[in-house]
Amino acid sequence: MPVNYTPPTPEQLLPVRGITLGTAAAGIKRWKREDVLLVTLSPGSRAAGVFTQNRFCAAPVVVCREHLAQGGHTRALLVNAGNANAGTGDAGVAAARLSCAAVAKQIDCLPEEVLPFSTGVIMEPLPVDRIIDALPRCAAALTAAGWYAAVRAIMTTDTVPKGASRSVDVDVDGGDVTVTGIAKGAGMMAPNMATMLAFVATDAPISAGLLRDLAASIADASFNRVTIDGDTSTNDSFVLIASGAAPMRPIERPDDPRLVPVRAALLDVAIELSQAIVRDGEGATKFITITVEGGRDISECDDVARRIAHSPLVKTAFFASDPNLGRIVCAIGNAGIADLDPRSVSFWLDDVLVVEDGGRATSYLEEDGQRVMAQPEIGVRVSLGRGNATTTLWTCDLSHGYVSINADYRS
Amino acid sequence: MPVNYTPPTPEQLLPVRGITLGTAAAGIKRWKREDVLLVTLSPGSRAAGVFTQNRFCAAPVVVCREHLAQGGHTRALLVNAGNANAGTGDAGVAAARLSCAAVAKQIDCLPEEVLPFSTGVIMEPLPVDRIIDALPRCAAALTAAGWYAAVRAIMTTDTVPKGASRSVDVDVDGGDVTVTGIAKGAGMMAPNMATMLAFVATDAPISAGLLRDLAASIADASFNRVTIDGDTSTNDSFVLIASGAAPMRPIERPDDPRLVPVRAALLDVAIELSQAIVRDGEGATKFITITVEGGRDISECDDVARRIAHSPLVKTAFFASDPNLGRIVCAIGNAGIADLDPRSVSFWLDDVLVVEDGGRATSYLEEDGQRVMAQPEIGVRVSLGRGNATTTLWTCDLSHGYVSINADYRS
Repeated sequence: MPVNYTPPTPEQLLPVRGITLGTAAAGIKRWKREDVLLVTLSPGSRAAGVFTQNRFCAAPVVVCREHLAQGGHTRALLVNAGNANAGTGDAGVAAARLSCAAVAKQIDCLPEEVLPFSTGVIMEPLPVDRIIDALPRCAAALTAAGWYAAVRAIMTTDTVPKGASRSVDVDVDGGDVTVTGIAKGAGMMAPNMATMLAFVATDAPISAGLLRDLAASIADASFNRVTIDGDTSTNDSFVLIASGAAPMRPIERPDDPRLVPVRAALLDVAIELSQAIVRDGEGATKFITITVEGGRDISECDDVARRIAHSPLVKTAFFASDPNLGRIVCAIGNAGIADLDPRSVSFWLDDVLVVEDGGRATSYLEEDGQRVMAQPEIGVRVSLGRGNATTTLWTCDLSHGYVSINADYRS
Repeated sequence: MPVNYTPPTPEQLLPVRGITLGTAAAGIKRWKREDVLLVTLSPGSRAAGVFTQNRFCAAPVVVCREHLAQGGHTRALLVNAGNANAGTGDAGVAAARLSCAAVAKQIDCLPEEVLPFSTGVIMEPLPVDRIIDALPRCAAALTAAGWYAAVRAIMTTDTVPKGASRSVDVDVDGGDVTVTGIAKGAGMMAPNMATMLAFVATDAPISAGLLRDLAASIADASFNRVTIDGDTSTNDSFVLIASGAAPMRPIERPDDPRLVPVRAALLDVAIELSQAIVRDGEGATKFITITVEGGRDISECDDVARRIAHSPLVKTAFFASDPNLGRIVCAIGNAGIADLDPRSVSFWLDDVLVVEDGGRATSYLEEDGQRVMAQPEIGVRVSLGRGNATTTLWTCDLSHGYVSINADYRS
């Protein structure tokens, strides 16, 4: 069960003009469920992506980057679950290209206008024939109301589908803009090496350059701020789509006032999805917000936040609801800030001051720490006391459930 | 149960001339067991140490560094279990100094000739009075045969005592040299934030400068090559002791031929102890040797080895005996080598070639991978294919036992 996350109902995922979605069962694994998703975008649609930094990036990531670099329009996304098409060498890239060509033929566009995505086990050949065979069935199922079926088709170890919508009144034109996003990923950014995939779409007409900037800045403030266990998968992808089908003048300049509410809605959906991934993190029983402030720069704040978020000792203490504060202190000390003066460090659990001047706060009572640690949502706030930079990271605990899920995944 | 590790019998831990050890129960935690160790070294003894790099280093580490920096001799070590005296601020440092003064008075030496060590929970005040009260009882128990009792007194979550001895015939002088070492630490280098402590002693007369160099190079090839979960505790300490009580001329030059067998014995004991810590790692069911070769320099080999060793996904796959090879590939890709060409990477599980040219080896059979993964000892060998540097790291898996131990430790 996710921590404080209620999945959307099918009705809550609003159609986005210009976008249709269709799913089918291709039998990629032995499961009997839909596992291929085709998304079509109306002519003139734009897409921008942020992808894994892993050097062993998957074949579909290679092909996505290539297709997006050609700077044209995007007309379709093809997603499969059950196989990540990663660590599959040149054959994997060829398979991804083949699937794009098949989609192009199916919906009558160029292969470079198709973006491929895969999630599942890695180092196994992609059964691309079965995916291609499923395309006519996906095409037959295409509907603007397909978002809920779409997110169900791309789940792997997720326990619930993750999606969100916003409707924005862009009052300059008197028109409404819709934003709908779906995501999968139940471990870290790299659940079971099986990937975080997130697709956020709007019908607002946003120019290509602006969309690229938006994708980068939104990812930095949402998907790049969540972590389960510190691994980055071979397939992690976040794609921002603008169909342009809303009847309004194009948004082409960063100072266009209509961009403010649209950007806010996109970011809102992205944050909700990224937090949902953590709330449904493998074995997660706690949702933890780590804020590090008082750093000289954001980079050192981020180092401290990630060190805390990735320490198995800290994570198991959260699981145990144990205010074993020394573990957090120790993680801060291990963050690699060579000239950090422990005496300038303080930290809080929610509103409870725990460490002051590098030692246990005189006001600290174990029962206060225990009260906070027992909550399903916990805030950790660290002050480094040496500057004005701040960062926030969202993570979860490390439980028996995590070990079970990851020890049993392939069997 | 540790993985393939048989603890020493009391008789196997050989006395080292010039060194006596005595333990007592000080009741530092509510347990009824000996928890304070006093080690005395004969006049003229030297010690050299390698300590944690954690910025929140514990009070005893601060005091040890100070005392060793004074360049004099060392006459005693005082160790307590149950409380790490870390995150305790100035009061903690004062407590550590107080304990050194009490030892100095007890055995008639200078406070700077005493090295203090603590292991246990952190952020709690050290009950230094109880430790000082126990000193006369430790002194009354001092014996050259005290090594086994000593290692038992410093255990925390260790399931077995860890110790080793070697007797070396330094035939130039016709004399024998003894090396005996003990260690504790059952998690990572930082079990439960409760520290890796290792003491290795010889009666060979080694000069101060030479001993410092030996301590650094031996730590690099032993204790710095093991990792359980990547955290470095506030208290980690490795101390090399030379009592000089063996009847032979001093060893003062690095090219002294007598140093060769002595160094080999010291390193042998240090490697046995460091591996024993991993074999008894919290919840460990597998002992894994990771070798990374073909790197441009040792640093990048080490980055790859540690990324593999610290990946929770890789560690749970070892626990599950699951040859989920993609997880290792993914960890290699996450090691931060920006210009790594996946196509030059290969890896082996023991003798089984798994990945070749960045993809699954054509000769690879899942049953071969499964055979190796089912073993209690597993070798992972990665070739980066871009240079001649090599490194080795020892680690263990991540099991339900790890979560249980660390979720329950304080309660």
